Amino acid sequence: MDNIVIRYTEKPKLKDPIFIEGLPGIGNVGKLAAEHLIDELGAKKFAEIVSKYFPPQVMVLDGGLVKLVNNELYYVRNVGKGTDMIFLVGDYQGMNPEGQYELTDFILGVLKDFDVKRIFTLGGYGVGRIVEKPKVYGAATDEEMVKEMEKFGVVFSRGEPGTGIVGASGLLLGLGALYDMHSVCFMGETSGYFVDPKSARAVLEVLTRALGIEVDFSELEAKAKQIDAITARLRESEVKPEEPRKDLGYIG
Amino acid sequence: MDNIVIRYTEKPKLKDPIFIEGLPGIGNVGKLAAEHLIDELGAKKFAEIVSKYFPPQVMVLDGGLVKLVNNELYYVRNVGKGTDMIFLVGDYQGMNPEGQYELTDFILGVLKDFDVKRIFTLGGYGVGRIVEKPKVYGAATDEEMVKEMEKFGVVFSRGEPGTGIVGASGLLLGLGALYDMHSVCFMGETSGYFVDPKSARAVLEVLTRALGIEVDFSELEAKAKQIDAITARLRESEVKPEEPRKDLGYIG
Amino acid sequence: MDNIVIRYTEKPKLKDPIFIEGLPGIGNVGKLAAEHLIDELGAKKFAEIVSKYFPPQVMVLDGGLVKLVNNELYYVRNVGKGTDMIFLVGDYQGMNPEGQYELTDFILGVLKDFDVKRIFTLGGYGVGRIVEKPKVYGAATDEEMVKEMEKFGVVFSRGEPGTGIVGASGLLLGLGALYDMHSVCFMGETSGYFVDPKSARAVLEVLTRALGIEVDFSELEAKAKQIDAITARLRESEVKPEEPRKDLGYIG
Amino acid sequence: MDNIVIRYTEKPKLKDPIFIEGLPGIGNVGKLAAEHLIDELGAKKFAEIVSKYFPPQVMVLDGGLVKLVNNELYYVRNVGKGTDMIFLVGDYQGMNPEGQYELTDFILGVLKDFDVKRIFTLGGYGVGRIVEKPKVYGAATDEEMVKEMEKFGVVFSRGEPGTGIVGASGLLLGLGALYDMHSVCFMGETSGYFVDPKSARAVLEVLTRALGIEVDFSELEAKAKQIDAITARLRESEVKPEEPRKDLGYIG
Repeated sequence: MDNIVIRYTEKPKLKDPIFIEGLPGIGNVGKLAAEHLIDELGAKKFAEIVSKYFPPQVMVLDGGLVKLVNNELYYVRNVGKGTDMIFLVGDYQGMNPEGQYELTDFILGVLKDFDVKRIFTLGGYGVGRIVEKPKVYGAATDEEMVKEMEKFGVVFSRGEPGTGIVGASGLLLGLGALYDMHSVCFMGETSGYFVDPKSARAVLEVLTRALGIEVDFSELEAKAKQIDAITARLRESEVKPEEPRKDLGYIG
Repeated sequence: MDNIVIRYTEKPKLKDPIFIEGLPGIGNVGKLAAEHLIDELGAKKFAEIVSKYFPPQVMVLDGGLVKLVNNELYYVRNVGKGTDMIFLVGDYQGMNPEGQYELTDFILGVLKDFDVKRIFTLGGYGVGRIVEKPKVYGAATDEEMVKEMEKFGVVFSRGEPGTGIVGASGLLLGLGALYDMHSVCFMGETSGYFVDPKSARAVLEVLTRALGIEVDFSELEAKAKQIDAITARLRESEVKPEEPRKDLGYIG
Repeated sequence: MDNIVIRYTEKPKLKDPIFIEGLPGIGNVGKLAAEHLIDELGAKKFAEIVSKYFPPQVMVLDGGLVKLVNNELYYVRNVGKGTDMIFLVGDYQGMNPEGQYELTDFILGVLKDFDVKRIFTLGGYGVGRIVEKPKVYGAATDEEMVKEMEKFGVVFSRGEPGTGIVGASGLLLGLGALYDMHSVCFMGETSGYFVDPKSARAVLEVLTRALGIEVDFSELEAKAKQIDAITARLRESEVKPEEPRKDLGYIG
Repeated sequence: MDNIVIRYTEKPKLKDPIFIEGLPGIGNVGKLAAEHLIDELGAKKFAEIVSKYFPPQVMVLDGGLVKLVNNELYYVRNVGKGTDMIFLVGDYQGMNPEGQYELTDFILGVLKDFDVKRIFTLGGYGVGRIVEKPKVYGAATDEEMVKEMEKFGVVFSRGEPGTGIVGASGLLLGLGALYDMHSVCFMGETSGYFVDPKSARAVLEVLTRALGIEVDFSELEAKAKQIDAITARLRESEVKPEEPRKDLGYIG
């Protein structure tokens, strides 16, 4: 089989779409944020990507049906001031460096076909402590993007994250430059101990400002309250939360 | 050499054969079940598969002869109400994700040539405790399959197994859907501490009902008694059995 | 670069040569035995094999010169009753399963060109305790080979080694069968704690009987005495030797 | 995408250039030395190499801009007695053996095009203790090189390093021999605990003598004083520095 297989259920015509990536990573910040946006904007799935760079695994869904682990592309038209959008979400990122490079390059090829020129990648930045008001750090491919995004409250700082950005959120910027894409990565501060809807909301607040759109956050707020309840209970019982895996701490 | 090499000792003509997979996995439930069925039905080996995705290893057989580790295909004709069957058993599953995908895709290509439309994969579901009466959980590619198999006592439940199904038993369903195969995976509850003939029997009881055939279980019962004797001794001496490897706990 | 590169310094004409493999492995038994035979018979190097399946490493030789890690082929003509021989020795075996399969298949292709029909692979069998009189276990591709080799004192036994034979010594037999080669593997009992010249001698005693030749063992005896001195000192100081690496214990 | 991608910003015409490699490794000795030389000689970047053998990672630079991790080639003309030079520096070496072989072979192909005949690779030799006056050990492809370099104070000794040279500094010599390149590796003694500008200076003192050039070392001295201050503080507080990673101890 091919290393990467894409199956289109639809080939939508889109006008200068922007691209938003939210794959699993630290605190699942990017995944939560992108999936929330897909739900709120009513974006529609149009393609599935399976690959031998993902684990050899099926998920078991409601009703006992299986789904091969995959990545999925969604689109929505005419949002806010008339923007078309493509989203990438999924169960996994590529499991090894080769897979990361191949999958990212594959996605960029797909985006080129849709004439994408602007990329937003969403992720978390693990800081190893509970964060009350998560900041959103940024990194970009060019200075105009930096200047533009600073206006929306994104923090650009050489030392953050010190280890660079590992995984799809970083690679889409790095390889995207070879495709002449203007890209920015938003990283919400997060402890790294838990799935973090609060950080996802912080990222979305910046992103929606940048896109000139408004979305409802009640769904994310409900999830955040659940997590807060769990962390409060953990603190009371003085059970120290598990150490975050170090090798995940810097995955965007 | 090719990544995967198949050698046919025979190319049997089969009429709409169903396919049954039982490779090694948690508790070796699938392997025990499929091998028992091969023995009881007198199925005949017709092909061997060797691959660089298997370990670089030979087994030493009776009389000092070696056998390169492999997977093997068996067939039997006209069982029960006239069903032809193909079986897959073997020493190992693919050793890495790429190998899992490539081997599964290769097998599906072979099955397509034999016009297989219906797949049963057999495995174990590790629950971390001794199970007196193992249930058989299921997962399937389509709702008709779910409904049909529920009648034979298979339990379909979103949360089980929570981590999905890893390995050939899951991938044959996930990739099989791309080949338009209707598939179901049977997973017998098992501790994960031991090879588990009792769980294999539970799986076979469901499978034989689904296939409308009857087989003798005395061979599996004898093996189960041996294991029971060992676990009883362990409990008496209060030696705690070794922890099951976590990364194997969810391999089907 | 190609995955495997062979460079011939000579292409000797050989008459029905037999092939003897002695790559590094448990106790370095096979390597010691094959290198001793090369020295004693005055065999001549005729080819070097480098590969990306070996570590990215150079050895530093006398005088500060480097040597890229490799495998080497030697030949000798007209030994004993007129036998031509090819030897394979080297710094490493392939570092992963794919490398093991590819390298072994590559070697078998070379041997086919030289019209080799008979293979002897030499290795150690780690038993986890000091062995005073090492037995030599065998495994073979066919029954005639088993019968013939039993006459020279080789022990053929289903249970030994229980885990099969991992690495080149096993794979040359397993894949060699696809090339119609008649092969036998000799495994000298060894503790697994030390490089073991005594076990290498045991293997060579059997091999030389099988080949109908005689060689001097004083070189190996000297090495064995050095090791004996070290182990004696270790026993006196009650320092327990390090555990052998389990994953090496069954490499032939 | 290709496994390795090179992008030239310029294709300089060079006359019999020598090549100097300084990729990351033990104590970052080679990297520090080569980067210092690039700065002092005003060498100019002319090509970037990205590869799926590097980590899937971007670095975050000043001003929030990203840079995909890469290797870079620099050149300088007419140094000392009129020598042209090419330098290789970068963020990472290849992450696995295949990557090491492929990247080194790729670089050698590029060098062949520039008609390079002489290679200097720079690295560290980890000895596990603080070294006051680091010696510079050498290894070379031919005896003339050994003799020539001994005159400049390089120590050639079979036993050093005992494990050989792992990584690009060794492989450029080993594979370079297949390209008829005359090469030498300089390894500065270093503890392995810290980035070591003092060892980098020792390497450069030998290299500049060999090249017949002079460079200012004040930049490296300043860095060395910073490290000395840190190690002094560590010794006072009796905090034992972390063990060097064993698998890095012998990377050149």
